[in-house]
Amino acid sequence: MARWQPDAPGRLAAAALDLFEERGYEDTTVMEIAERAGLTKSTFFRYFPDKREVLFGRGTVAGLLVEGVASAPPSAGPLDAVVDALDALGRTFFTDDRREFSRRRQAVLNAHTELREREALKRLDLTASMVEALGRRGVPTATARVAAQLGTLVWEIAYDRWLEADADGGEGFGPLARQALAKVRAAGAGC
Amino acid sequence: MARWQPDAPGRLAAAALDLFEERGYEDTTVMEIAERAGLTKSTFFRYFPDKREVLFGRGTVAGLLVEGVASAPPSAGPLDAVVDALDALGRTFFTDDRREFSRRRQAVLNAHTELREREALKRLDLTASMVEALGRRGVPTATARVAAQLGTLVWEIAYDRWLEADADGGEGFGPLARQALAKVRAAGAGC
Repeated sequence: MARWQPDAPGRLAAAALDLFEERGYEDTTVMEIAERAGLTKSTFFRYFPDKREVLFGRGTVAGLLVEGVASAPPSAGPLDAVVDALDALGRTFFTDDRREFSRRRQAVLNAHTELREREALKRLDLTASMVEALGRRGVPTATARVAAQLGTLVWEIAYDRWLEADADGGEGFGPLARQALAKVRAAGAGC
Repeated sequence: MARWQPDAPGRLAAAALDLFEERGYEDTTVMEIAERAGLTKSTFFRYFPDKREVLFGRGTVAGLLVEGVASAPPSAGPLDAVVDALDALGRTFFTDDRREFSRRRQAVLNAHTELREREALKRLDLTASMVEALGRRGVPTATARVAAQLGTLVWEIAYDRWLEADADGGEGFGPLARQALAKVRAAGAGC
């Protein structure tokens, strides 16, 4: 029996990223990822349904986002609630020590259509999660859809800037999301 | 030598949709699609890089959209230019006679994650095309991104309603897009 291993999904993701960079996504097998992580193939499949999924967490981001929208102050408008959630994400997930991994991960994603497709669907699913979470705050569906759509754009802009930021002294994801929100609001006035 | 066949991509798409419905997406091969369309496998690959791509046209929609944004009146604001383009799309592509095919196609897409992923990436690419087309009209990037993001939502809302509409007497895609625009603008005020 395999002994208990802490953070198996995280180790599998790290091993996968190393291998995708070293020998390419196509030429890396699930078995190799598991071996590199010091785990078995069946452990891999306990956490991820396929090779593509290994770089997409396990719903962590979606969970934090939904939680963040739910716990925004009752007075927060829909788009502000989404940005509050992004701020919370920044404090717990998009932290400084994850920036380098995220940057390498994004480069691998950008280079493979199969991974870009999976990422695109995840993004749609995250937008849908925002709509649902806003609905639970009593936001009417049409408003929730607009807020989620703009919130997704705020996220994209903030994420790109966060990836580019310096490892030390770079701005955190939350403050970047607030700047992006101001930019999106100002731009919206010209639409 | 194969004799010249009109609209080979359209026939391949129709054959693929029939087969995906009859025996499932996974269990249909490119060879079977080509045979059903009365064409060869090499003709299939002349038009589509893989089986997944057969239900996604060949950039027709993206081309019409970019053209529509470019030919909107100079006085049109960014989001209005996008909706003018959707109107043009409605007149040339999302026509009444395509509604039934589109509805069947959407049902097949919704049922397969691989196809939903391809669709999600296509949607991101279409949004990026809108941003570029707006940029060529002199719209600043931030404004273009917001307009494209909201334009994509207008499209989604209009497309869902268009699919649901009656074959006869249902509203056209263009008018539905204008209604969706009004709804999105009103909802945006509450964000």
